[in-house]
Amino acid sequence: MSVTVAVDAMGGDFGPPVTVPAALAFLRENEGARVILVGAEDALRAELAARGGASHPRVEVVAASEVVTSGELPSAALRTKKDSSMRVAINLVKSGRAAACVSAGNTGALMAIARFVLKTLPGIERPAIATALPTLRGQTTVLDLGANVNCSAQQLYQFGIMGAALVAATQHCERPSVGLLNIGEEEIKGNDVVKEAAELLRASDLNFIGNVEGDDIYKGTADVVVCDGFVGNVALKTSEGLAQMLVTFLKEAFKRNLLTKLVALIALPALKGFRHRVDPRRYNGASLLGLRGIVMKSHGGTDVLGFQCALRRAFEEAESGVLERIARHVTRTGTHPALAESQDA
Amino acid sequence: MSVTVAVDAMGGDFGPPVTVPAALAFLRENEGARVILVGAEDALRAELAARGGASHPRVEVVAASEVVTSGELPSAALRTKKDSSMRVAINLVKSGRAAACVSAGNTGALMAIARFVLKTLPGIERPAIATALPTLRGQTTVLDLGANVNCSAQQLYQFGIMGAALVAATQHCERPSVGLLNIGEEEIKGNDVVKEAAELLRASDLNFIGNVEGDDIYKGTADVVVCDGFVGNVALKTSEGLAQMLVTFLKEAFKRNLLTKLVALIALPALKGFRHRVDPRRYNGASLLGLRGIVMKSHGGTDVLGFQCALRRAFEEAESGVLERIARHVTRTGTHPALAESQDA
Repeated sequence: MSVTVAVDAMGGDFGPPVTVPAALAFLRENEGARVILVGAEDALRAELAARGGASHPRVEVVAASEVVTSGELPSAALRTKKDSSMRVAINLVKSGRAAACVSAGNTGALMAIARFVLKTLPGIERPAIATALPTLRGQTTVLDLGANVNCSAQQLYQFGIMGAALVAATQHCERPSVGLLNIGEEEIKGNDVVKEAAELLRASDLNFIGNVEGDDIYKGTADVVVCDGFVGNVALKTSEGLAQMLVTFLKEAFKRNLLTKLVALIALPALKGFRHRVDPRRYNGASLLGLRGIVMKSHGGTDVLGFQCALRRAFEEAESGVLERIARHVTRTGTHPALAESQDA
Repeated sequence: MSVTVAVDAMGGDFGPPVTVPAALAFLRENEGARVILVGAEDALRAELAARGGASHPRVEVVAASEVVTSGELPSAALRTKKDSSMRVAINLVKSGRAAACVSAGNTGALMAIARFVLKTLPGIERPAIATALPTLRGQTTVLDLGANVNCSAQQLYQFGIMGAALVAATQHCERPSVGLLNIGEEEIKGNDVVKEAAELLRASDLNFIGNVEGDDIYKGTADVVVCDGFVGNVALKTSEGLAQMLVTFLKEAFKRNLLTKLVALIALPALKGFRHRVDPRRYNGASLLGLRGIVMKSHGGTDVLGFQCALRRAFEEAESGVLERIARHVTRTGTHPALAESQDA
């Protein structure tokens, strides 16, 4: 059985010149995949022709006349851009024509439109944004990364369920360990919401390993790290900034003079191995979890390789039945007061 | 005029074998400095003798019979360890015998004891922990790093005043730029506390540049970045974890085989330059700001070079009159409703 992925082909900093070749590369590596490219039909057909994919049997083009821009307010995009490539791609998931959709566009608009069109899964109060990060031991999935600024303990608990379901489904790891992001400095160890969330997680059937701290993310202490969207967003962006600074400094160190430039040439194979391990493109793709459909956010500035990774992640989520797993977990733990309440609502 | 620094010589993972040689090195580079080593007298005198500092004219030893351990609860340390090296060092600041004190011990205990013994400056509700981080442009001072888990807008505003005063005094930069750490994903751009803090900062005479995001810390977008202690602590620890992971991966890349090992040898000078630029020891020393005295927290696991840096920072703060500058700023902006209230209290 094939899995169809709808692509917001106009989203991101580059649009079709990145999304179309990425889609074709993705189809080459996944024979069971089909793609629906959504956007300006002429531009998409021209790009397909230029890439030798004019009559690809597993590519379909669906027209959309508008594009959500990066600076647009999510509420405005939701209200006014009914025929945007982003919205039409999400509609394809809603109607069942696609099993998942991928967009490199405006994160806030994607979340707002996806929430409005698809709705949340039963028992889930708010969707969260989750992504995998490289660690010393493999990878760790962190959520939420910015969808929810103020989270209740119940929401953090639900993030734990969703993150564990995602990792269990896509990484073939039945009982992924779940850690709650906290700080160790204060005697009281974190605020009341985090303490209450720890109690909910401890009482659940998740493999909860307790509090973790910021450095545990990259140590790979837990398979899933749960935090509110403000903290998660700061942690992610701070990491991006630090990595960029270190790469800049490393380049400068090797560019200082003729000798160090020569050394850099010799060191290139070793540095390439290093670079591959931490290449952010290989980790591109953040899941909007908790919706009645799979929606994947790609980094806006990524290239073909990065967008291809986001497509692959969406495909894997659809294939592995992440949504069913979240729904099952929520049902199983449905007696939990936190969830019972939100299910009643 | 000389400046005396009191040293909790027993604190940290290593105690006198690190603190004593660091103190002697610090005295060698600062002729206007004096040091009071606080702790187990015999151990300190033995260490001094072993390092050729037995009769150093600018070293004094003050006995303290107890040590605050790293696992100890701050409240317990405050209540029971009246003769700890940490507390006696802080007492020396209180009595005026020392202009500053430095400890590599338990952060929570240091904050609790310093707050109890020294009290906060007029108009400052809560002290904050501040440290400088390397950036693409130089350095950025971030606060709070974990002393305050739930901050009011007024507290964040006061962190801005304190951070700006610290940078102005020690970095000879009269109007340092101040940024408020926030996230850009959500339409509402952050929570209510952060929005209110932005209004207070905008209305102040600080050089407030508005919201900054996590990656701006290492870009060096602002001289001072203000955030609550939960977020700051996660950002700092996440950075530590990421840096450690990248260094590990870099080492592994060069250790893969005989050829890459050889390349590593040739690349050593370039890599050393890189390492020096981001060496965490060079940035060691976090200020407990807002107290009626200078208290510097050193990383517990640092070595002689790192502890020496923390001593240097404490010395620079004492020499440059940071406390007077904070007090002056608070007075000048004393008409601000936020501060007027807390001054009345």
